[in-house]
Amino acid sequence: MIRQIKLGMSMRGLGYHPAAWRHPSVPADGTLRFEHYVRNAQAAERGLFDMIFFADGIGIRERDEPRGSLARSGYEIVEMEPMTLLPALAAVTRHIGLVTTASTTYNEPYHVARKFATLDLISGGRAGWNIVTSWSEAEARNFNRDEHLDYDTRYERAAEFVEVVTGLWDSWEGDAFPYDKAGGLFYDESRLHVLDHKGKHFKVLGPLNVASMPQGRPILVQAGASDQGREIAAASAEVVYAAQDSKETAKAYYDDLKSRMAKYGREPEDMKIMPGLRTVVGRSRAEAQAKWDELQELLDPLVGLARVYNMIGDLTGYDVDGPVPEPLITPRVKSITDRYMARARQENMTIRQLYNAIVAGGFIIIGTASDIADGMQEWFEYGACDGFNILPTHLPVACEDFVEHVTPELQRRGLFRTAYEGKTLRENLGLKPHVNRYTAARSQARAAE
Amino acid sequence: MIRQIKLGMSMRGLGYHPAAWRHPSVPADGTLRFEHYVRNAQAAERGLFDMIFFADGIGIRERDEPRGSLARSGYEIVEMEPMTLLPALAAVTRHIGLVTTASTTYNEPYHVARKFATLDLISGGRAGWNIVTSWSEAEARNFNRDEHLDYDTRYERAAEFVEVVTGLWDSWEGDAFPYDKAGGLFYDESRLHVLDHKGKHFKVLGPLNVASMPQGRPILVQAGASDQGREIAAASAEVVYAAQDSKETAKAYYDDLKSRMAKYGREPEDMKIMPGLRTVVGRSRAEAQAKWDELQELLDPLVGLARVYNMIGDLTGYDVDGPVPEPLITPRVKSITDRYMARARQENMTIRQLYNAIVAGGFIIIGTASDIADGMQEWFEYGACDGFNILPTHLPVACEDFVEHVTPELQRRGLFRTAYEGKTLRENLGLKPHVNRYTAARSQARAAE
Repeated sequence: MIRQIKLGMSMRGLGYHPAAWRHPSVPADGTLRFEHYVRNAQAAERGLFDMIFFADGIGIRERDEPRGSLARSGYEIVEMEPMTLLPALAAVTRHIGLVTTASTTYNEPYHVARKFATLDLISGGRAGWNIVTSWSEAEARNFNRDEHLDYDTRYERAAEFVEVVTGLWDSWEGDAFPYDKAGGLFYDESRLHVLDHKGKHFKVLGPLNVASMPQGRPILVQAGASDQGREIAAASAEVVYAAQDSKETAKAYYDDLKSRMAKYGREPEDMKIMPGLRTVVGRSRAEAQAKWDELQELLDPLVGLARVYNMIGDLTGYDVDGPVPEPLITPRVKSITDRYMARARQENMTIRQLYNAIVAGGFIIIGTASDIADGMQEWFEYGACDGFNILPTHLPVACEDFVEHVTPELQRRGLFRTAYEGKTLRENLGLKPHVNRYTAARSQARAAE
Repeated sequence: MIRQIKLGMSMRGLGYHPAAWRHPSVPADGTLRFEHYVRNAQAAERGLFDMIFFADGIGIRERDEPRGSLARSGYEIVEMEPMTLLPALAAVTRHIGLVTTASTTYNEPYHVARKFATLDLISGGRAGWNIVTSWSEAEARNFNRDEHLDYDTRYERAAEFVEVVTGLWDSWEGDAFPYDKAGGLFYDESRLHVLDHKGKHFKVLGPLNVASMPQGRPILVQAGASDQGREIAAASAEVVYAAQDSKETAKAYYDDLKSRMAKYGREPEDMKIMPGLRTVVGRSRAEAQAKWDELQELLDPLVGLARVYNMIGDLTGYDVDGPVPEPLITPRVKSITDRYMARARQENMTIRQLYNAIVAGGFIIIGTASDIADGMQEWFEYGACDGFNILPTHLPVACEDFVEHVTPELQRRGLFRTAYEGKTLRENLGLKPHVNRYTAARSQARAAE
């Protein structure tokens, strides 16, 4: 079988444009209405997507700078808690994978292991856990802390957290339950394993009180960017969300990450790397551009200024159609600021043009279905990715547009499935089955005899 | 309108008889199959129950004593995590309340507030939180501890935990979201309230990133038995699960709990007290008794001996059809042991008869639908309760039996609804609407002007 593109659809909130909520087609209260999520999930499933993905933050993350900008931005203010939402979506879908974030910094591994195991059972094998360490102060302050943990401690805790969760998931072997009513035996003690983990950050006895997951265990997802993050991904991630805006940088990342896997006994195809991609599709390029421009025009200047706040400072006193001033502050991330400031100087940008450019940043294709398929095919065949994580600009329409126009074009080219291949997310992603560690050890011992 | 009985259906696991899993009608693997839970929940909704309830333990709680008994008991071994299960059940039901346990000892209030708020949104106002403090060592050992917290610390933490959660639920007033697309205003800053809680056990900034719950906030449920537990219940619980086996002790508890409410500014009808009740219904009394006997006969002696382990000690070397020996150990709860030992002596019980009697303990009615309705009516009219929490012996059949036979009998007597009265659990329970604390303060201030 030829290698095909894997597709995820991110569906946090109302879409991946900061003015999405103001778009005429968008239900501004959608993030608090179940039917909004159902419509999006069912559209993605019609489009045969491998999975939907909900990023998550445990708090209202952005600082309200400049003052008042948050109230004018509908982004990540109020929405459903995704680990509670996904089981409900499992009940109204049949094939699509269900992936969400759970933080290793503000959770306990026993809870996370139980919840994702249960989601896997409810969905018939469609659960995926996106492992994050949470970096924001807003989140820290909702969890008994004044500031977030330092980077090294977060990553050390994350690695141990994953070790405990995957250990708990192996508590019961596949044949642990004879359910022998006549003989009165519910489970076979020799197939039950007590983890008894004692580490630096966690002490967890086990066993897990959930078992028999259709996928063996849920899919592990990560977005490893830093060196340490890449190591964790190479060691265990089965899906990686990437974020590059050129196929060259994407390929460099792809090759680096895959080359790190061998030392963990893993093969390159054990991990699917999926960069984020925003698409705006029109019947013509002009129509697509007009759709994008409509969103950009809905961008409130105060919300736009919030995007340059950490680069340049508070520009509320400035004319947004005047020139971009020199930074008033030390920027949070110097390299990004330098890049945008250089571009602003070179193109003689106004402040509005600058924040519009920032909002248009990342990998984005505005054009016909054929243009979008071209761009995806180019990256895919260049070896820059195994698929894409689609970031719809505004929901539900941008998701439906993709499914209606781009999916068929990819299928025509033989680049994408025409029906789900498997029953589980693991099967659809083309990943190997999970083998319980104790079952594996027993087979090895038997083979050695 | 006349006062009617409120009904909950507990549906943890495979039922409230330790041999339930061996019953021919019971799917032994049901606790790991979503359709098992769907069938039970939909049956309870057909029976117009106010709510279904999932108790929960974060670990495999019982000690495996005598050795091997756990593997022969299907009870609380593996099952779905209820906070993940309930949203999925919300998607396949329309009216019934959805209540589950979340421990205040092994959770963070921000997570709990978010999850129950989300469940309330998904279900259209049917969420309820059963507040527990977790007492078992098995749970402690899954959460970085060697033993559970002492009683006072647990209850102190629980009280503060509830304060934080209910505070977070009031983060956004009902009119906080103008969703004004033309004016660009998503939320009204004057209707957003940052909790900024700083207490002994928790420091939580807020606001909550979920809002607009159909019930105002989820229902608070508790099972306060001790003096301290009763105070917490009196202060905030809207539903109380009780456990008495005579209408006199139930009435004493009922009167005591309701009398404690006034000092918290609450009226008796602000809380519904619902003792647990097991029912075994037959077309005749003989048929009902035969159903019960069938279950008792399925009780594995080793599972039966586990029931007397903490009273008498390890009796695996004894003839179960021989006499009950004097206790070999210091019993865990002396009063209960003394009561059963006195009965064993008086009735010349064998060991088997004793554990059968223990399994048959609590409030239980075995008889016709009319017998069961008589018993319920007697307690209700005696002032011993506001309703009952039905504990089906084995699922799904005991739940369906109740709905098919007992519900119509209660309706015939005018003791139970013939259709759901409201849209939310709060409305069906006949509880007052929740008023946001800041909205209330503003109305009071306006009224005082």
